[in-house]
Parts: sequence; C-alpha cells; structure tokens
Amino acid sequence: MENVLDDISHRRYNPLRGSHILVSPHRTKRPWQGAQESPSKTTLPDYDPKCYLCPGNQRAQGDTNPKYDSTFIFVNDYSAVKEEQAPYDGSNGDEIEKRFLKAEPVTGKCYVLTFSAAHNLTLADLAPIEIVPVINAWTEIYAAHLSPSSPLAKNAPPTHLQPVNHHSSVSRPKEQYRYMQIFENKGAAMGCSNPHPHGQVWTTSTLPEEPAAELEQLRRYRVEHGGSHMLEDYAELESRKQERVVFENEGFIVVCPWWATWPFETMIISRTHKRALVDLSDADKTLLAEAIAELTRRYDNLFETHFPYSMGIHQAPLDGTQEEVDASYLHLHFYPPLLRSATVRKFLVGYELMAEPQRDITPEQAAARLRGCGGELYRKKME
Amino acid sequence: MENVLDDISHRRYNPLRGSHILVSPHRTKRPWQGAQESPSKTTLPDYDPKCYLCPGNQRAQGDTNPKYDSTFIFVNDYSAVKEEQAPYDGSNGDEIEKRFLKAEPVTGKCYVLTFSAAHNLTLADLAPIEIVPVINAWTEIYAAHLSPSSPLAKNAPPTHLQPVNHHSSVSRPKEQYRYMQIFENKGAAMGCSNPHPHGQVWTTSTLPEEPAAELEQLRRYRVEHGGSHMLEDYAELESRKQERVVFENEGFIVVCPWWATWPFETMIISRTHKRALVDLSDADKTLLAEAIAELTRRYDNLFETHFPYSMGIHQAPLDGTQEEVDASYLHLHFYPPLLRSATVRKFLVGYELMAEPQRDITPEQAAARLRGCGGELYRKKME
Ligand SMILES: O=P(O)(O)O[C@H]1O[C@H](CO)[C@@H](O)[C@H](O)[C@H]1O
Ligand SMILES: O=P(O)(O)O[C@H]1O[C@H](CO)[C@@H](O)[C@H](O)[C@H]1O
Repeated sequence: MENVLDDISHRRYNPLRGSHILVSPHRTKRPWQGAQESPSKTTLPDYDPKCYLCPGNQRAQGDTNPKYDSTFIFVNDYSAVKEEQAPYDGSNGDEIEKRFLKAEPVTGKCYVLTFSAAHNLTLADLAPIEIVPVINAWTEIYAAHLSPSSPLAKNAPPTHLQPVNHHSSVSRPKEQYRYMQIFENKGAAMGCSNPHPHGQVWTTSTLPEEPAAELEQLRRYRVEHGGSHMLEDYAELESRKQERVVFENEGFIVVCPWWATWPFETMIISRTHKRALVDLSDADKTLLAEAIAELTRRYDNLFETHFPYSMGIHQAPLDGTQEEVDASYLHLHFYPPLLRSATVRKFLVGYELMAEPQRDITPEQAAARLRGCGGELYRKKME
Repeated sequence: MENVLDDISHRRYNPLRGSHILVSPHRTKRPWQGAQESPSKTTLPDYDPKCYLCPGNQRAQGDTNPKYDSTFIFVNDYSAVKEEQAPYDGSNGDEIEKRFLKAEPVTGKCYVLTFSAAHNLTLADLAPIEIVPVINAWTEIYAAHLSPSSPLAKNAPPTHLQPVNHHSSVSRPKEQYRYMQIFENKGAAMGCSNPHPHGQVWTTSTLPEEPAAELEQLRRYRVEHGGSHMLEDYAELESRKQERVVFENEGFIVVCPWWATWPFETMIISRTHKRALVDLSDADKTLLAEAIAELTRRYDNLFETHFPYSMGIHQAPLDGTQEEVDASYLHLHFYPPLLRSATVRKFLVGYELMAEPQRDITPEQAAARLRGCGGELYRKKME
C-alpha cells in the first residue's frame, strides 16, 4: 500500500509518552557497511548442563533449580535492587549541593522467570496453550505483590495470591512496593546472556520514569475525553483503519503503533479496558497467549532468525491511588532492533540519544511486512 | 574514595532533563556471559582507497572529495531530512484519527564533517591544536545557519558566517531552520560504519525532544534562582567537590555528572555562560580543544582500546526567542557504552527501555578511574 508519507520526512507524536519521533522513510536506501550482528545459533540442546536456568542445575550463588517442567521463578542472584540495605536519608550539604546532588534510596525485589523447561525453545516456538502458564506466572507474581488496599486486590482471584511454585523466596515482601516491571530481553543484541527462554520481574519502591510518564498521559486523556481510555480508543481506530495491524483477535490487537521508534516495534493492546493482568479471565489469557504466539512467530519468520527484542508489560502500579489504577491500561511493548536482515540492526545512537528518536521504514511498511509473515515457524518448515 | 552510596541502590535526579535514573552499585559483581564487542582494529592505514571520507576519493552518489588536509564538510549523501520534499499538511480524517495520527513535515539539511584527513586518527590521537580546526568548523557551520534575527547573530564574528571549505552545498539554506544537532558516533558499537574520524550535523525545521527538554529545565532554573544558570552553578559545585571531575581548565570542566546513565558518561561544561559555539573566543576554543583531547585520550587509555561513544553538542537553537537563547548553555555530552573492558558493554535494554535507565558503577567511581587514566595515549607508548 503506497502512502503519501512514504517519501516525506516527518515527525510523529506519541500520545502515550507525550513525545515525538522523526521518521525518514527515504533513508532505507542507505547502504550499510557497519557492524553486523552474529546470527543466533539454531542448534541448541534442549538441556544444557552448564545453563543456570535449566531444571535441576546449580545457579551462580549455589542454589539448585527444582526439576520444574513448565515455568520456574526465583529471586535474581544479582538483583539490581534489594529488600534490605543500609538506610540513606538523601543529600546533605549546603543549599547548592541539595539542589544538585539529589538521591533517594530504592528497595525492591528482582525475579527471574523461565518460560519453559526446554533450553532451546522460545516464545515463538510455543503454542498459545504453552504460553498460558507464562501469563499465569506473571499474573500470580503480580497478584502476590499487590497492595492489599489496591482497588485491584478485590478483583484478584484468591488463587492468584499464592506464591508461584511454592518457592519460599517468592513470598510477599515485608515492604509494600510501588511498581512491578515485567520484561524480557531476548537475544545477545538485547543484552541477554542466556538463551534459555526467560524474562525478568523488577519490583521497586518507586514508580519508574516510563510507566509514570504513560500513566500521566493516560490520566489526562481520560479527563480531556469524558472518561474514555486512550488505548481503548486507539485499538478501535487501528482495527478500523487496518493500516498498522499485525494481528488481532477478540481480546487483543497487535499493531506497529503510529509512533513506533524501533523498526519493527509493536504493541499488544487489550481491546477493552483491563487495568492489570489480574483483570484477565482465563479466556482473555488464552487470547493474549495467541497474540504473543502470532507476533513472536512472525518476528522470527521475518528474517528467518531468532528475532531479538526487549518486551515489557505496562499495567497498574502495585500500590496506586484509585485514580491511577482506573487510568492504567494493560499493554505490552516489543522493541526489536533488527532493521534489514538477521544481521543488520538499527542503531539508536548519536542523533537519537542527543536530539530525538529517528526511524527509517514507516510503521505502516513494518506492519505490512509482519502481517505477511504468518504461517508456520520457518524453523519447523526446514526440519 | 569510599562513598556511602557505593552499596545502596538509589535513584538520582537529573535536573537537566527533569528525569531519574536507578543506580545499583553492588551489581557490578555480576558475571558476564553475554555478547562481547569485537575489539577495534588498531592497524588502519592513514589512507584507504575504499573510504568515502578520505581526501580525493569518490563518494556513494558520485561526488569526489577535494584533496583536503584538515577538516572537510559535505551534505550527507543519505540525509535523514531534506531541504525540499512534497508538501504534507498533517493528519486528516475524523476526530479520533486527528487525535491519534498526528504528523508534521520536517525539512532540514544533514552534513558530514571529517575531523582529519588521516583515515586512522581519532580525536584521542589529536593534540588540542589539531582539534581547534574541528571546533572552528562546528562554529562556522552553526554560524552559517543562524537566524539573522537571532540575538547571537550580532556576536558571531563575520568570518564565522563564511561557508566552510567553500563547498557550494554548505551555503545557507533558503529556509531558516530551528535547531542544529552536532554529534559524533564513534566505533562500531555505536552504529558508526566508517572508522575515518568524522561527525555529523543534522539541522531541522523542528526543535528536537532532548534539547527542548533541556531548554525548558534551563529556563525554569533561571526563573527559580534569580537568573543564575543551572550549568554554571553545577560546574562550580563540581569543581569545589572534586568527586566527579575528570579534568578541568580555566574554561571548561569535564565531569561524570551526578545523574550519568552510561557507565562512563561525561559532560564537558563551559564554566561561564556561553550560549553557543559562536560565543567562544579563540582562547576559549583552545581550552575546549584541550578538554576534548584530555577526555578522549583518557577514554582510550581506560580499557586500552578505541573507546566507542556517541557525543553531542547542545547549544542555543538557530532560531530561538530571546528567552530561549539567553537560557541556552553550551555543553557536550559523551555517552560511551563500555562497562568493564574493551569487549564488555552495558546494555540499556529491557528495564531501561520499559521502566527507567539503570547503571551499575557510580559516577564517582567512573570519574576516579578516568581521572587516573591521564598521561600518554596507550597506543603511543606501545609503538
Ligand atoms: O548516519 P550513519 O552514521 O550512517 O548512521 C548512524 O547514525 C545515525 C544518527 O545517529 C543513526 O540514525 C543510524 O542508525 C546510525 O547507524
Ligand atoms: O539482568 P541481565 O539479563 O543479566 O542483564 C540485562 O538486562 C538488564 C535489565 O534490562 C540490564 O540492566 C543489563 O544491562 C542487561 O545486560
């Protein structure tokens, strides 16, 4: 589909973050002589005795993994935040020091969650029914950390409040934390150091920058538009336009958003207002699992490689005001770096870091290519 | 120097952007089994017949470079923005489409600037006196695009308004642009596709996100603090504390800022209020050249490698209001990805993209290491 914007440099507005990106579609003609990613090895064993995530293996700090057969969650051996640390009461010094040397302590808890017992499978290899346990684990860890006074706690089915896998370290922390960021770094290009399928969960006493910025934009939209939800309106618009849709089912829509920064960036958006994972019914979870399966399979099919990305789930704070929780809207972001092939990525560097994010192909072009990549996983066809 | 924050996870405030970063100093203990950068080749020829930046060579679109002997500037053959393009009048459609599908056309001009005729030299190899021509070229290209009605135009010495190298394409564009971003991507890890020392200059009809956010913070500080300049106060504080200083001379201070995100991130800050490069005297330029030389040499010495980074200059908009220009404060950012060695970098991925930038070593630890890396360039010692 030819689009008038395909040959015009322009700036698009991201209403979810309240920021802009520069789109330079004609720039894809540029030849590439720079760094190449190494294509991922496709011949991993299904069990690796040296992997610290495989069932039954020993981890860095001496703990042994149980012989789990689906998902497994444990406290990160190198957590970025800890439950306990020495007290710190912020900056001191004269007025100028207080003005510039501002710091606040952050406590929290970091988990690692494996998606499968098999070392050599990824979300793209799993059927929706095999992804449901991952969504259940995300939901349970979220529910287990939810503030008892949250408006969401009432809706969270009691079973969800059980610790996952009965592993003692997953129990509710003594302190009530403010936010939980669930994410996955996939592939060496995205800083992932172990191919065993896994994601992370970082829970902090603070509300981090990105969800805070989104929450403020979501809240404002509701105020400005008579209580309607930005992402509900947006999902409906995209479903109607069919210009940036990669996949949709009754519950979720997968789009390359109008304001995508990464070349094949997508969002999975709930089509109706869900504040957090605990708002999903079992049927909703199956639909979300299908959306994840359809998207990750297309990603891998696009360049016939294990497609690297960072994925993150944005949802209501664990401990939020009624207004914050009501404005929250469950969605997933996928930020994949590849641009032209399994080895040529987009670098978000000089101009992007110093001035403004910049992209080459349009989100419409990206969506058209991903839409066309359905069907069986390329690796299965090759077997 | 032991610091109470060396073992406490905390969040620091960045007053220049108005945002936060998470610092997890204890996390450096984590072993690294992930992707390794390839160490840069140190044996490049001083002239490469296949390099499109070397003097006398032909470029991708057919132009031939002059036999220049210092700097050379030309219009980027694959510019992200162009001077002319088809008109585009923004979004259309119904109310909801207008709400979400917002775009504005962006015009502009992109240049490439070589720093030296030699293919195998970098800023780290150059003496301050050899960096002065680079600063002059930056100043001249900035001056050549400055709005005639800018308060800065009056101060810009007439010589600065001459096109650089008398290359016709560097002449003033017909349209008055709003902002000029000067930057350098160095090293394959930062998306640089040619080792010939060079930077870029992107000039746009819009004020990009980062300088806009900084300008707003700088402006507010002036209003809140009786007209004083945030970065002047900050430079003075850092010079007094000596905890994050890498190098300083009479004109400039090089610090790992309190709020640094990248492991060895630094800023070069003018010690007195300079709104833009055109405010620098010849003596100031020599001092800035010295600061750049001292910093880039220390970077290379740190892990005995060609240290990759993205560098950017922030200064007054080309076409700004009196208030904007007066609030602007010349400074340079360096964002280098390496963390532990020439091959192990920090990945700003999942948590950082989805939630909040996170760093491992503290800026104080980084500054102490860089301070200790002065002296001769390691490559020269090895000769
Ligand atoms: O223009 P170059 O050097 O080929 O390209 C590099 O810098 C640009 C500006 O930061 C980025 O948009 C590109 O992704 C990067 O590879
Ligand atoms: O915790 P991991 O997977 O070892 O580490 C990876 O993800 C983290 C969270 O995004 C980042 O801080 C690290 O830089 C990255 O390498």
